[in-house]
Amino acid sequence: MASISARSLPGIPEVREGDDLAALILAAAGGERLAPGQVLAIAHTAVSKAEGAVVELSGVVPGERARALAGELGADARVIEVVLDESAEVLRAERGVLISRTRHGFVCANAGVDASNAGGAGEIARLVLLPRDPDASARRLRARLRELGGGGSDAPAVLISDTFGRAWRHGQTDVAVGLAGMHPLEDWRGRTDADGLPLRATWLAIADAAAGAADLARAKDSREPVVVIDGLGRFVSAEDGPGALALVRPLREDLFR
Amino acid sequence: MASISARSLPGIPEVREGDDLAALILAAAGGERLAPGQVLAIAHTAVSKAEGAVVELSGVVPGERARALAGELGADARVIEVVLDESAEVLRAERGVLISRTRHGFVCANAGVDASNAGGAGEIARLVLLPRDPDASARRLRARLRELGGGGSDAPAVLISDTFGRAWRHGQTDVAVGLAGMHPLEDWRGRTDADGLPLRATWLAIADAAAGAADLARAKDSREPVVVIDGLGRFVSAEDGPGALALVRPLREDLFR
Repeated sequence: MASISARSLPGIPEVREGDDLAALILAAAGGERLAPGQVLAIAHTAVSKAEGAVVELSGVVPGERARALAGELGADARVIEVVLDESAEVLRAERGVLISRTRHGFVCANAGVDASNAGGAGEIARLVLLPRDPDASARRLRARLRELGGGGSDAPAVLISDTFGRAWRHGQTDVAVGLAGMHPLEDWRGRTDADGLPLRATWLAIADAAAGAADLARAKDSREPVVVIDGLGRFVSAEDGPGALALVRPLREDLFR
Repeated sequence: MASISARSLPGIPEVREGDDLAALILAAAGGERLAPGQVLAIAHTAVSKAEGAVVELSGVVPGERARALAGELGADARVIEVVLDESAEVLRAERGVLISRTRHGFVCANAGVDASNAGGAGEIARLVLLPRDPDASARRLRARLRELGGGGSDAPAVLISDTFGRAWRHGQTDVAVGLAGMHPLEDWRGRTDADGLPLRATWLAIADAAAGAADLARAKDSREPVVVIDGLGRFVSAEDGPGALALVRPLREDLFR
């Protein structure tokens, strides 16, 4: 019998630029000791805010392409300008949304750009971007957790998540955009099942499944960016590993789109 | 603070055609009472075997198209024949794999067809298909659990899963192919976050995230098809609901492929 559990960590305050997110997480964990085999799943917005990956909408001057697209989509041209800045390639622009490949290589809606406010109610004042290098963010956060003594001699794995739409299926699920200390994929290729037969499912996107599990433990309108996952110790390593970019499928290998 | 947990149920024997899967599950649960707010995530192969959705390879006579495709793919023409039978449309045939849309509408590798054996070691003797109507299978299984007293006056939700590849990202994750008693999607469209701002992620594929969480609690080479998930009671309903087919995105609405 195997088991996993995921629980959100209450008490993380609204994160601001320059905040020590690792310290906030350890303070929220309180007396509880974070363990090396645990995975901390963190909503990317908390990381981006701490890193200052935030754009004030008032300072954005939309270019010609952004104004044209905004007209087609019925969107704020300044928001589109920021989305275009974050995009390496626009794949679709329909029904109010841009699907693009981000500078990192992720394919998602609006290049992962989220609306935020600046204290006022209900008005978009700031946009929260994806971290510039989410794997590096995860590594830094993990190193800082280790430094502050979280997890004792070692630190839990750090998984930075975002919520992405998918091809073929309705709805969105959380996926890993940054990762340190956890294997993103479990490779069973060449291995066989209990009968000695080749397995059809052989390359499991563990980190994405973990991101999805974490999101189930988080109320969407709450401010609980951090979820602690237990039971995935077999995927956690002392080394930071290849990161979440290993989950990005090169276009030339993609049979599913 | 919210939390979820998932644990595999040991002691389910190899399932054969005609087996009462609900009775096997309740026997494996032993003294433990299954609760109405729980979700039982079941690998589709167990359901298909119980329903006899299995094809003996020795009886398959491949047609011309199957033989041609098998030649291109370097595959067994009889396997390809069965995959074609299960496919409404072949989307790609490359690198040893067919990506097709199944009769149900799912897009996946080899139309969800898995290899199985017939007691011999390491030789494919039988193919396990997806259940003919996985939502109906989930409803029947739930009704039978209720009948047998699992979950007291009501029954846990039943989620039948399979492991699918995705566009844009490496690796596979488990998704829901059959569902009874659980909301497949959590709809936040039109709702706002703690700041009163529109949410970017507003239509969450809860059932797919739950399928992924369940798979993390299951060793891939073990025979543990059933995982019990706690903590998702807010998505579980007495009514069976729309099923997993509600997760299939119609082609005309698909911006992500």
